[in-house]
Amino acid sequence: MSESHHSINDPAEAAAPLKLIPPDIRSLEDYARRAPAHMTPSAWEHIRSGAGAELSLRQNREQFDCQLLVPRRLQSLAGGSAATTLFGYHHAAPILLAPVAYHQLAHREGEIATMQAATALETTMVVSTLSSIPLEDIARAAHAASQAMERDRTPPLWFQLYFQADRGHSLELVRRAEAAGYCVLMVTIDAAIKRSEFALPEGGEAANLRGMPRCVQNSAASGGQIVFGTALADAAPTWDDIAWLRKQTSLPIILKGILSPADARKALDHGVDAIVVSNHGGRVTDGLITPMKALAPIARIIDGKCPILLDSGVRTGTDALKAIALGASAVMIGRPQLHALAVAGMAGVAHMLHMIRAEFELAMAQIGVKSLDELGPDYVTYSD
Amino acid sequence: MSESHHSINDPAEAAAPLKLIPPDIRSLEDYARRAPAHMTPSAWEHIRSGAGAELSLRQNREQFDCQLLVPRRLQSLAGGSAATTLFGYHHAAPILLAPVAYHQLAHREGEIATMQAATALETTMVVSTLSSIPLEDIARAAHAASQAMERDRTPPLWFQLYFQADRGHSLELVRRAEAAGYCVLMVTIDAAIKRSEFALPEGGEAANLRGMPRCVQNSAASGGQIVFGTALADAAPTWDDIAWLRKQTSLPIILKGILSPADARKALDHGVDAIVVSNHGGRVTDGLITPMKALAPIARIIDGKCPILLDSGVRTGTDALKAIALGASAVMIGRPQLHALAVAGMAGVAHMLHMIRAEFELAMAQIGVKSLDELGPDYVTYSD
Amino acid sequence: MSESHHSINDPAEAAAPLKLIPPDIRSLEDYARRAPAHMTPSAWEHIRSGAGAELSLRQNREQFDCQLLVPRRLQSLAGGSAATTLFGYHHAAPILLAPVAYHQLAHREGEIATMQAATALETTMVVSTLSSIPLEDIARAAHAASQAMERDRTPPLWFQLYFQADRGHSLELVRRAEAAGYCVLMVTIDAAIKRSEFALPEGGEAANLRGMPRCVQNSAASGGQIVFGTALADAAPTWDDIAWLRKQTSLPIILKGILSPADARKALDHGVDAIVVSNHGGRVTDGLITPMKALAPIARIIDGKCPILLDSGVRTGTDALKAIALGASAVMIGRPQLHALAVAGMAGVAHMLHMIRAEFELAMAQIGVKSLDELGPDYVTYSD
Amino acid sequence: MSESHHSINDPAEAAAPLKLIPPDIRSLEDYARRAPAHMTPSAWEHIRSGAGAELSLRQNREQFDCQLLVPRRLQSLAGGSAATTLFGYHHAAPILLAPVAYHQLAHREGEIATMQAATALETTMVVSTLSSIPLEDIARAAHAASQAMERDRTPPLWFQLYFQADRGHSLELVRRAEAAGYCVLMVTIDAAIKRSEFALPEGGEAANLRGMPRCVQNSAASGGQIVFGTALADAAPTWDDIAWLRKQTSLPIILKGILSPADARKALDHGVDAIVVSNHGGRVTDGLITPMKALAPIARIIDGKCPILLDSGVRTGTDALKAIALGASAVMIGRPQLHALAVAGMAGVAHMLHMIRAEFELAMAQIGVKSLDELGPDYVTYSD
Repeated sequence: MSESHHSINDPAEAAAPLKLIPPDIRSLEDYARRAPAHMTPSAWEHIRSGAGAELSLRQNREQFDCQLLVPRRLQSLAGGSAATTLFGYHHAAPILLAPVAYHQLAHREGEIATMQAATALETTMVVSTLSSIPLEDIARAAHAASQAMERDRTPPLWFQLYFQADRGHSLELVRRAEAAGYCVLMVTIDAAIKRSEFALPEGGEAANLRGMPRCVQNSAASGGQIVFGTALADAAPTWDDIAWLRKQTSLPIILKGILSPADARKALDHGVDAIVVSNHGGRVTDGLITPMKALAPIARIIDGKCPILLDSGVRTGTDALKAIALGASAVMIGRPQLHALAVAGMAGVAHMLHMIRAEFELAMAQIGVKSLDELGPDYVTYSD
Repeated sequence: MSESHHSINDPAEAAAPLKLIPPDIRSLEDYARRAPAHMTPSAWEHIRSGAGAELSLRQNREQFDCQLLVPRRLQSLAGGSAATTLFGYHHAAPILLAPVAYHQLAHREGEIATMQAATALETTMVVSTLSSIPLEDIARAAHAASQAMERDRTPPLWFQLYFQADRGHSLELVRRAEAAGYCVLMVTIDAAIKRSEFALPEGGEAANLRGMPRCVQNSAASGGQIVFGTALADAAPTWDDIAWLRKQTSLPIILKGILSPADARKALDHGVDAIVVSNHGGRVTDGLITPMKALAPIARIIDGKCPILLDSGVRTGTDALKAIALGASAVMIGRPQLHALAVAGMAGVAHMLHMIRAEFELAMAQIGVKSLDELGPDYVTYSD
Repeated sequence: MSESHHSINDPAEAAAPLKLIPPDIRSLEDYARRAPAHMTPSAWEHIRSGAGAELSLRQNREQFDCQLLVPRRLQSLAGGSAATTLFGYHHAAPILLAPVAYHQLAHREGEIATMQAATALETTMVVSTLSSIPLEDIARAAHAASQAMERDRTPPLWFQLYFQADRGHSLELVRRAEAAGYCVLMVTIDAAIKRSEFALPEGGEAANLRGMPRCVQNSAASGGQIVFGTALADAAPTWDDIAWLRKQTSLPIILKGILSPADARKALDHGVDAIVVSNHGGRVTDGLITPMKALAPIARIIDGKCPILLDSGVRTGTDALKAIALGASAVMIGRPQLHALAVAGMAGVAHMLHMIRAEFELAMAQIGVKSLDELGPDYVTYSD
Repeated sequence: MSESHHSINDPAEAAAPLKLIPPDIRSLEDYARRAPAHMTPSAWEHIRSGAGAELSLRQNREQFDCQLLVPRRLQSLAGGSAATTLFGYHHAAPILLAPVAYHQLAHREGEIATMQAATALETTMVVSTLSSIPLEDIARAAHAASQAMERDRTPPLWFQLYFQADRGHSLELVRRAEAAGYCVLMVTIDAAIKRSEFALPEGGEAANLRGMPRCVQNSAASGGQIVFGTALADAAPTWDDIAWLRKQTSLPIILKGILSPADARKALDHGVDAIVVSNHGGRVTDGLITPMKALAPIARIIDGKCPILLDSGVRTGTDALKAIALGASAVMIGRPQLHALAVAGMAGVAHMLHMIRAEFELAMAQIGVKSLDELGPDYVTYSD
């Protein structure tokens, strides 16, 4: 990677990433347990924390535990596969890398290392508007990695868009993503109004937004200004902006942050290509409905008309399986990217992705399902 | 403030209030965590504790956690506001200061400091019958504060009334409140029969009740006397007292402590102007229904005929939002006043009020609501 | 009391009972917390413990916490009373002393001290078949205490009967109880088949059963013999024994240990005078339905035809209030007798009884009820 | 036993088995608590652990705690018995020894000691395909033990079959079991696809499978290979294998691992003789429905057409009683065999079996049931 991507971590405080995957890492949670040692305390807290009292952070994990799998036995598994196709792109498993800000908080190679792992595992990575490294650099490195690994195609890079206060700036980001070869736009719609929790450590700066005003992403809630009546609230994106964006680009558009059936219907009405049922990992608003609780009613509204993705709390293959049984087409994982990146860099992320895919396939096979199409609500029951 | 308001705290035991708000105070619970260091142990225990095994104290917090918010996305927030009008008085947010006894247990400036914070934030303060400082002194200081802060009007001071054993004494309190400019009467109806938990520290005396007999507010339950047949039980206020009070004053009357639909209907029948759904913060009877569980059926009976307030356990902006979605017009916060007062005096209370208002507006905006009228049960779902 | 009642406790191990009630004892649980210091470890374990993994021991407490009180406000309390009449005997409050074995495990004065406290508080005491002191001595001392305290009548002593393997022995106990002036028979029907948990400390011997065979109360479950086919199982009492007993005595008969509506109906059919909904304080079988869960369906079957008592886990006045709201006529308290007896002897038991009666009256008044007849299911709601 | 069965434990690490049962062992959980001291850490971890985050391991215990027993009182117990007949074999109680791999991980005498305990208690033992000792040796020793104990018949030994990748190998195991006198085949259908958790300690080798390929039982999920498309998935047994097996043997066939009504029906359609409702003790897939939750709907489908067994988490007599009340004919216990074996060898297993049988009979008698036929759903209620 380019020398210009300097480290954010203070080497005096945080242990260097490991060269080898430690043998006691057998689950994604093992990476979470080891990650703090490889980051500054403030970087770890930024990654770990949730909004408010972190009720949603906890409930996002519990939402999976109260769904139980109902297996079917002795099904033929010959010719089985966990593969799925999204927007024409083959995915070996329905597990993608969610957009996550500032990968350099975890590792000096930042999004480049994550992308290389995704390339190695042929997994889609959704690059955040708030990436530590410019989106063009990531795309360019992806081409190089793809060639070096002798892949016959560049792995799909998707771009996550935060609307900027000025439509011109938003459009500029879209055009840059298109030009760099990003093939899908994922528009995050649940974080326009957000409390600024703490000053990011050195380098936690949005490389893509240099030169753009930042009032949209931060509101000093503990300062003198209250939300309504501020430029922040007045400039928050609305459905009109989705309609506008729809006309600006031919890339598929995914709306990330839907939690109600009514909004799912509106998304369909606006011609979006997919939705993500998400509460932003409990990072923006505490006490929101969990995605797994929201999922089934939304799936009834969507009724197969577009793919549904789900994130927030997915940590195991069975978590993913339950989500797909209840109506998701795929899931995304967020924080574990940075945990694995901090512990062991690109190799860590690749290993993490491999583990959850193996868990997922294993669990599919164990409940007697050999393709995602067979999954449905009968395979899950609610634990009272 | 007057020199005659001497401190209740022993400076040898409790740290002095801070001059500056510590930067690590980012929520109301942070004040609760720091408050004990700034009070005598007995004052802290008096403020913190609940009745009996403190089941209600705990459930009052949990009642909010099992209600989850269902956000609507991409709504226009332009021109939004959290403001509401109660009894003709504008409130920038539907969050008021509940009546709380003996503010001097927390800070030598007592209710005066709390009132100054309320004035600065243009928030209603409900002054308790059991204030440490005479109601007239508080009102007078409120005028002065209002002028000093160049407000164009005195902030609304409401008076909380405990019925006294003798109607004459009750009426005397009402007349004093009217004369001092209090604009609403909030009658607490859930604490006439109350166990006396411990001897209050020095100065924990009700300034407004000097010269009046006190048997009504205390029953020595562990002494020889049992409740029924005592003057305490025989003199407990009844609906007849409400009817009588209604004829004595033209001030709006709010009944505080309603927890059943039947009593809500009775309140309407008696011509009261509002009710407060409350279990007195779990301080009087342990094991009562929580206000949030009681709220929706009561709201169906009230059906918009008068405002409903709610207190008991409100600690965050999302707590307030959930209550209003389920039918409250506003909420009141109790113990956090004293927490903030102990930690940082008037500035602490002002900061505390600002934080919860900011949280409230932020959460409103985040769930896509730009006025209180839009809120309703669709924005909340019960977590199983 | 008679010199022949020697202490069971080893004074070298356990602190002597206190002469004064410590001021920090403000609830029945405070006695439970202090009691171990005043007993041998084995006596404490015998009193504290429950069957098996102590699931029922725990659930018996939780059963009250998930019932919440719905208060009515501003009701007149003048002329109120918690009194009730059971079998013609006035009770100042519907809270009785449950039959509890071996009071000398807690205090050398054993049942005599407990009885004196009951006499002082005019509360019914149910003397166990397994009392440490002969039933006649307790009755005689009760007369003396009653005269010393200038009561105009002996307080009601009831006798709890365990059926003996031989009907002759059972009848002998009944005749002795009648002769000694016991006025009600409470027949325990849930402990005939019981695991012998440990060797009782010295003196933990059933004074009433000297000379009778004991096979009925103990089964060495860890020895070579299993339950069925043993004399223990074959001699276990049946409904025929109830029919037989009904013909032997004109005393009121109460069946203790009913947990199903079907058995409640059978009790009515057999002409019993009352039932006790109880799971024996979780001491006999682990994992039984809790009395509060069993109560309402049983109350519908009984439909006022006879009183229903409830025990197992009652520790506060609000616990008692909830049970009565759901259909009980009165409650009984068990282990707290021994806790208070160990800590402070007769004065401790009297204080304990006074506290819970005061709590009960206070809670009645606080929910707006001035007689037990007014209580009903409307005053309770289930906490989800 | 044969000298050739050498110990797996390292005597330097683990305490020797005890000669006498310690008197403080009063429940199966007491054996679990003591067992780690008598094993190597890796053996203990292998026995103790569950799949994934061990959600199912925990829920398997909790599933029993939320079912409560509803007792009937005063029923005649004369002539009662806990006995049942399964496949023509008398069982003194409906509690069998589940198939458990590698008994030598717990004790050098391995399955021989367990079998001797089963013989002494006349309990069925299901010998695992993965036994530490060859199935023929166990059968031979069983004959000898039976004669030594003067039993008039060899206790029933059942054989648990894991399908091998090659039907020839599977058939070879069946023929060997038939030849050695095993009288029932229990086919485990829920563990063909399994994650290999760790390298077994020395000697943790399947004595019956020497010379057969092992790819079926292990998948290196954290290695490069993913599940689908591997020989492991392609060779996983299907319903066709059951149909094939049905034709190969006249032994009764039991399918172990059914968790859905649909599979229960399929089992009936394939002419199997019984099913086991089991989630494999939470060892294979985390987050499966618990057997007790799955049981009642399955029992409705089976409708008495064949016996239903249940395992996974049974630790007490009341656990067993609840399962039978909800539709099981018998239960099996797994890990406690190894706990007791490690602590006190053959005597430990015998004691463990005696304890749970005594608990079971005691609980039957205590809820007023004198034969298994009387048990039904009325004796159980769900704890909300």
